[in-house]
Amino acid sequence: MPLVSHIKIRNRMSVLNLAQEMEAAKVLGAGRFGKAARILGEMFRDKNCMKFISLAGPLIPGGLRSVVTDLLDGGYVNGIVTTGANVTHDLLEALGHRHIVGSENADDVNLKRRGLSRIYDLYVTQSSIEQLEKVTYRMLNRIPESKRRNIGSHELLWEFGKQLRDKNSFVRTAYVRGATIFCPGIFDSMLGLHLWTYSRVHPFVLNPLRDFSRLVDMTYEKRRVGVIILGGGMPKHQVLIANTYRGGVDAAIQITLDRADGGGFSGAPLEEAISWGKVKTPKNLVTVVGDASVLFPVLAVAALERSKSKR
Amino acid sequence: MPLVSHIKIRNRMSVLNLAQEMEAAKVLGAGRFGKAARILGEMFRDKNCMKFISLAGPLIPGGLRSVVTDLLDGGYVNGIVTTGANVTHDLLEALGHRHIVGSENADDVNLKRRGLSRIYDLYVTQSSIEQLEKVTYRMLNRIPESKRRNIGSHELLWEFGKQLRDKNSFVRTAYVRGATIFCPGIFDSMLGLHLWTYSRVHPFVLNPLRDFSRLVDMTYEKRRVGVIILGGGMPKHQVLIANTYRGGVDAAIQITLDRADGGGFSGAPLEEAISWGKVKTPKNLVTVVGDASVLFPVLAVAALERSKSKR
Amino acid sequence: MPLVSHIKIRNRMSVLNLAQEMEAAKVLGAGRFGKAARILGEMFRDKNCMKFISLAGPLIPGGLRSVVTDLLDGGYVNGIVTTGANVTHDLLEALGHRHIVGSENADDVNLKRRGLSRIYDLYVTQSSIEQLEKVTYRMLNRIPESKRRNIGSHELLWEFGKQLRDKNSFVRTAYVRGATIFCPGIFDSMLGLHLWTYSRVHPFVLNPLRDFSRLVDMTYEKRRVGVIILGGGMPKHQVLIANTYRGGVDAAIQITLDRADGGGFSGAPLEEAISWGKVKTPKNLVTVVGDASVLFPVLAVAALERSKSKR
Amino acid sequence: MPLVSHIKIRNRMSVLNLAQEMEAAKVLGAGRFGKAARILGEMFRDKNCMKFISLAGPLIPGGLRSVVTDLLDGGYVNGIVTTGANVTHDLLEALGHRHIVGSENADDVNLKRRGLSRIYDLYVTQSSIEQLEKVTYRMLNRIPESKRRNIGSHELLWEFGKQLRDKNSFVRTAYVRGATIFCPGIFDSMLGLHLWTYSRVHPFVLNPLRDFSRLVDMTYEKRRVGVIILGGGMPKHQVLIANTYRGGVDAAIQITLDRADGGGFSGAPLEEAISWGKVKTPKNLVTVVGDASVLFPVLAVAALERSKSKR
Repeated sequence: MPLVSHIKIRNRMSVLNLAQEMEAAKVLGAGRFGKAARILGEMFRDKNCMKFISLAGPLIPGGLRSVVTDLLDGGYVNGIVTTGANVTHDLLEALGHRHIVGSENADDVNLKRRGLSRIYDLYVTQSSIEQLEKVTYRMLNRIPESKRRNIGSHELLWEFGKQLRDKNSFVRTAYVRGATIFCPGIFDSMLGLHLWTYSRVHPFVLNPLRDFSRLVDMTYEKRRVGVIILGGGMPKHQVLIANTYRGGVDAAIQITLDRADGGGFSGAPLEEAISWGKVKTPKNLVTVVGDASVLFPVLAVAALERSKSKR
Repeated sequence: MPLVSHIKIRNRMSVLNLAQEMEAAKVLGAGRFGKAARILGEMFRDKNCMKFISLAGPLIPGGLRSVVTDLLDGGYVNGIVTTGANVTHDLLEALGHRHIVGSENADDVNLKRRGLSRIYDLYVTQSSIEQLEKVTYRMLNRIPESKRRNIGSHELLWEFGKQLRDKNSFVRTAYVRGATIFCPGIFDSMLGLHLWTYSRVHPFVLNPLRDFSRLVDMTYEKRRVGVIILGGGMPKHQVLIANTYRGGVDAAIQITLDRADGGGFSGAPLEEAISWGKVKTPKNLVTVVGDASVLFPVLAVAALERSKSKR
Repeated sequence: MPLVSHIKIRNRMSVLNLAQEMEAAKVLGAGRFGKAARILGEMFRDKNCMKFISLAGPLIPGGLRSVVTDLLDGGYVNGIVTTGANVTHDLLEALGHRHIVGSENADDVNLKRRGLSRIYDLYVTQSSIEQLEKVTYRMLNRIPESKRRNIGSHELLWEFGKQLRDKNSFVRTAYVRGATIFCPGIFDSMLGLHLWTYSRVHPFVLNPLRDFSRLVDMTYEKRRVGVIILGGGMPKHQVLIANTYRGGVDAAIQITLDRADGGGFSGAPLEEAISWGKVKTPKNLVTVVGDASVLFPVLAVAALERSKSKR
Repeated sequence: MPLVSHIKIRNRMSVLNLAQEMEAAKVLGAGRFGKAARILGEMFRDKNCMKFISLAGPLIPGGLRSVVTDLLDGGYVNGIVTTGANVTHDLLEALGHRHIVGSENADDVNLKRRGLSRIYDLYVTQSSIEQLEKVTYRMLNRIPESKRRNIGSHELLWEFGKQLRDKNSFVRTAYVRGATIFCPGIFDSMLGLHLWTYSRVHPFVLNPLRDFSRLVDMTYEKRRVGVIILGGGMPKHQVLIANTYRGGVDAAIQITLDRADGGGFSGAPLEEAISWGKVKTPKNLVTVVGDASVLFPVLAVAALERSKSKR
């Protein structure tokens, strides 16, 4: 039977070395985190692996926008499945707006009066969301009407990406680097309200089945599929269910604070997905219980270093 | 300053009396639960209130199907926003299949071999999901093609409800009672896979913006709007964001095991939604931290009793 | 394979009937809750079962004081293992003080200035805690010095119970009914500070090993041992570890919001305790994930009704 | 109003640089983690700060034994308040036993049959715990009887530390380096069972009030007090309540998966402790929601680097 090793910390040790110490510990959260760093490092290095990241929760407004953009830019991620909110907030920053440091104990009645909307401990101005409407309309108008009459979110976001100038935008970077962003719930967001009002006066039909076709196609394009799941929700489920046709993903890591006992899919262990054919085998799977905003940057640094250094 | 009262339990006390004792306690989870029972009872009694329930997590396969159906049947709920999974599992039971009691520690590789797919501690047979395909196709074929070329999930589910015979089906009961079911992520489910394969050979375009138009319309149809939120995810967000045009919902209760600190909307307190205009005021709002499969039946019994007994 | 049954709610149904519907559902949280109601009902009816309750978290100040007192008074519980805080707050109420309904978002600097101390959303006055000192000293002075020189918490609380007059006090009621309260961390509380200052000027030695001797003795006094675990912490561990000598407890239910994945004992499943000899078999064990302040009153009403009605 | 900055990751960036990027993000979990790294770095550098760490959960058997020992050895920690379990498992390893990598889904009946006891996903042999008895008795016999008749856990652990030879033992290292270990629930552990059986035949009285006296004295010995709280339970409460006499601690960070809403102290925010006088001001306080086994090693590396590099 393998034995627990104790993590040795050293001054100025690299993030990768620390992750390897955790991998050697093998148990508890640290052991899982170390395993996740190994799997992710192997995924990053694997040229024959189609890499997806699912992104729920306010990671884009909340500090991880550059991390995501840099992974796209470096070719470490080929597809992203995310929420309408994350796309909305990327566009807001692309238009020059910024997110404001706030407090999770703020008085929301007062915030509303001041024109601020809250996401946990960060704020966004209502005026920036109003300004997004005009820009959204302008970007939509530039899309050929024939395309607009039956469009998937990934096509819409390519069209948007094409029109954006901000190099830090993950929507733009995906377009530039040929990566694909799926936003199956794009209509369920502040951006979605603008899409909806537009659709009331202009020809515009969002068709999520077009996204699914593209997503399924991508699962066949390389020998292996690897998935990084940050948070749960529909992004997690879409990326996994699209892989059932090819017999499931080959590797997956998930970071979440959700738990299995409520029965919901967000907190379900990756192993459960094996019984649905969404995941191939129990090898190369790991769930790390924790907050992705803290753990994913650490994991990404360790995995990048590993993908470069190791033979 | 108000004082904490201690809950008195009595032999054979009614569920309502127990909830009222908790309301009098005023603090901790019990105080919140008691407040939720009061708000829900008032909502149930209010003829001028449009009542929505958002439903995430496997409540339909997991034992709450009749609770939901009975609330629809009694006219206590006018609209439901739920996941594709809950619709899928309602249809499976409507076709005569049953869900199987399993274990959350099962070996998923073995389950797959046996043709079983797992949701936490319950199973469903893969063969039942395969059989659903044929029935789905048949039901889709009966929908006029012009309608099928641009259809919202709520219209699709009316068409399905019309064709079902099972009185315990919430999809059928909604149709019969004139209630509306929205399933903004219907494509993201086992049923969704069947819809997608159908769309590859038949004219079929799912348009979530049609759902949103109907949902927004419903928020204007009565003087007040009340929302019951079970679990988070897109169902929670859709129902709340649709109410921004009318200035927010008037009352809302939520039961969830998700927490605010990850920043995601699923665990966000209802107060946060005030800053977005999704909720009107801090009055008549309450979050109960807990498992909806346990707490909602208790709450529903208390609220029904209250809605009938009180003047 | 057993099948999931759907919970049927009926107007004015009893708490027991509702719990039995949940038991029949068999899965998810509801199934576990229903099972817990059955196990607790059997425990309450069993004359040959030594019944312990472990109590962590602010249940005594937060509304469950009468529930606990009534269970002691009815002979449904023979031993309680709890925190110093719960004893402190029982004594405060016994002295005529009340707990105040507050807010979990209060400004704590301001509260302190106003002489209020906070437990989540309830407050207690600092002056009441100061007044407790004099009373504690008086009660201690009445204990024979020979006893005071080496005393366990259960003996100390008997001495206190003897001197209290409040019929709603669980400390008094335990004394009156011959039940035993163990408080292995009694020194780690506001009452504990008074005990400590007393010990600096008077002979007074608290010996937790005396508690353990009595606790172990109690595990042998009846044919079976049943344990109700509300919250985790030392109360949970003490009551279970004391049962290792007799080969483990026969039945146990636990209600907690803690989870297993952090590795701590508070969130550990009861099954884990089998490997330590603290629990006998996997039969008659159940963990309900949830807030004890809501779930325990419901469970207690169901179990009491069951213990009386069923043959 | 300050703005959210986005975390920039770079290849081979140091742990400290990554933590500083998170600090600059300011929001969500990452912002809190970054703030914790700053506070801890300042604490480590501050010669006039008495530093305590409270340690609940199986961190010692689960991979963090060397981290704790190294912090003691480097003089970064002056006092530890921990559970009986962590002391037990330190002694087991000091005697040459190792912890075994297991599975959280193991069959506990089977494990027991094989002589293994489980802590989440790690095992320990029952035979090692039995062997601990003899060693414990021998170590106790070497303590002068007069001392043994009224001894605090910190004194007992000094006596044990004096007799141990394992340089990786935190109990030994504390003794060697003049640090103090408090174990207010030492009796509530496998080691505690051996202490109890010893006390049945030898003069031995554990007095937790002696610990409290020493703990309070330590809070006065330096100009400032800083506390690192890993997990909750009695260790968290003891270290904070002991600081009430001096007006509260000056700085504190806590890492925990427990939440506030159940009302228990383990999940309570540090701000709540201000209202009790256990914490001085809201400055230099931060709660990071997460698993200490993952986050603390990262935090410690960042803080050590910071304490050395920064002026």
